[in-house]
Amino acid sequence: MQDKELRGQPVAEKITAEVKKHVAEMKEKSSLPTLSMIRVGDRIEDMAYERSAQRRMELCGINTQSEVLKSDVTTQQLIRVIQKNNEAKEINGILLFQPLPAHIDVEAVKRAIDPIKDVDCNNPLSSARMYLDDNDALIPATPGAVMEILDYYDIALEGVSVAVLGRSMIVGKPLSMMLLGRNATITVCHSKTKNLAEICKMADIVVSCIGKPKFVTEEYVTPNSIVIDVGINLDKNNKLCGDVDYERVAPVVQAITPVPGGVGSVTTSVLAQNLLKAFYMQNR
Amino acid sequence: MQDKELRGQPVAEKITAEVKKHVAEMKEKSSLPTLSMIRVGDRIEDMAYERSAQRRMELCGINTQSEVLKSDVTTQQLIRVIQKNNEAKEINGILLFQPLPAHIDVEAVKRAIDPIKDVDCNNPLSSARMYLDDNDALIPATPGAVMEILDYYDIALEGVSVAVLGRSMIVGKPLSMMLLGRNATITVCHSKTKNLAEICKMADIVVSCIGKPKFVTEEYVTPNSIVIDVGINLDKNNKLCGDVDYERVAPVVQAITPVPGGVGSVTTSVLAQNLLKAFYMQNR
Repeated sequence: MQDKELRGQPVAEKITAEVKKHVAEMKEKSSLPTLSMIRVGDRIEDMAYERSAQRRMELCGINTQSEVLKSDVTTQQLIRVIQKNNEAKEINGILLFQPLPAHIDVEAVKRAIDPIKDVDCNNPLSSARMYLDDNDALIPATPGAVMEILDYYDIALEGVSVAVLGRSMIVGKPLSMMLLGRNATITVCHSKTKNLAEICKMADIVVSCIGKPKFVTEEYVTPNSIVIDVGINLDKNNKLCGDVDYERVAPVVQAITPVPGGVGSVTTSVLAQNLLKAFYMQNR
Repeated sequence: MQDKELRGQPVAEKITAEVKKHVAEMKEKSSLPTLSMIRVGDRIEDMAYERSAQRRMELCGINTQSEVLKSDVTTQQLIRVIQKNNEAKEINGILLFQPLPAHIDVEAVKRAIDPIKDVDCNNPLSSARMYLDDNDALIPATPGAVMEILDYYDIALEGVSVAVLGRSMIVGKPLSMMLLGRNATITVCHSKTKNLAEICKMADIVVSCIGKPKFVTEEYVTPNSIVIDVGINLDKNNKLCGDVDYERVAPVVQAITPVPGGVGSVTTSVLAQNLLKAFYMQNR
């Protein structure tokens, strides 16, 4: 590893180029893979992510289609839309924007997504597959992006100690399992962990996914630390920032991902990778 | 915690008494819970465990029935036996002895067990439920026994650091998830982990489940260490021993489980707990 700032963009570009190549090869023999995006209501964040995902799929040569439901849609209506997408042969992946309105039974909706099309890993069965080291597992986008960044920058994982801050089902837990699968020694930390700064200092790699702005300071790192910042928060001035206090930590450590421009900029590429994998699984 | 030697027997007795009480209460209104044990061939170890499980169920007031298949049974025949047990309303749990003969497709057989009757957590879906914090999850017996011992001896877990040696799907991984669910800070170690002795020394609790006789020595512990030994191995003299070199470690540490007489003596009680839970789930 040579770079100090571990930017996401070159990682995303490399993945995109790979996916694009495979899609182009497929084009000659079969139909194009297609992502179906389902949005409930008009939340600005959803629409921004929708545009970003659509752009990435375009770059990869992947079709997208959008389905927009009114924000007063019922759980049953939403589930029926998902089932229609499950059954549609021309759809290879389903991306459902979240959070959903409060009146929706989120768990029922997530479970309705067929795991073989669950490119955003919403169905608990998808997370479970990953835990079970199932080769057919689709990988949740954010932990997948972390792994891609580590690999792109040639950061060794075998026998390396990683402190994972956070244990959510979306990032911390699956990421811990993925790191363990690559023979890292993982320490899973959370709000009840004592001596957190000490633990982080002892680790070769610190990954923070706790959603607290600028929580990780220079007291958590050493000149050897590699810091991966998964957080996307707003600071006191409503400016985008990570879990890590970049200004104070970056000068000290060996390498660090920026926010924005780090992990977050790789997630749609992992989504495209998942869609390609889902396409292969559905057509094998 | 007062005891230095964390023996399994009183833990098993306490669980047994609790299960027995619930079974007695149920007896008045409904049928007795029943465990079906399926054994292939006549391996001495299987027959010993069968006797031990049968005895424990008897103590709890739980019915057992045994099905013994010839060791040349086919995968399909074995799966049919399991399906028969899945469908039988009077059967609440299925215990399949392992390892199975080499010609059997073990994964297919495990997957055949209905998760709601999978009291020994063989179906990957059962492990997955536990990973997903599903309340209906049945708990794998050995990690369950570790948790019961920790609780019985009032060993606090919240914020406490635990080094788990081993990451198998049977013990290390599910145990790590269970400890995390109880707010411990877990470090999952394995054959590729560097500075293992150091990591163990820093932890409040060390749990070893790696299957290497007397691997953990006094260099891995401090006077504050609590050591849980999951290993059941044979030493050079063909004598039963754990992963921990008891003679060298016990004098140094705060508390330790013996082998035999520790974790292993609690597993059939966890099995009985699971059977009771399965019974309730099937009758709710």
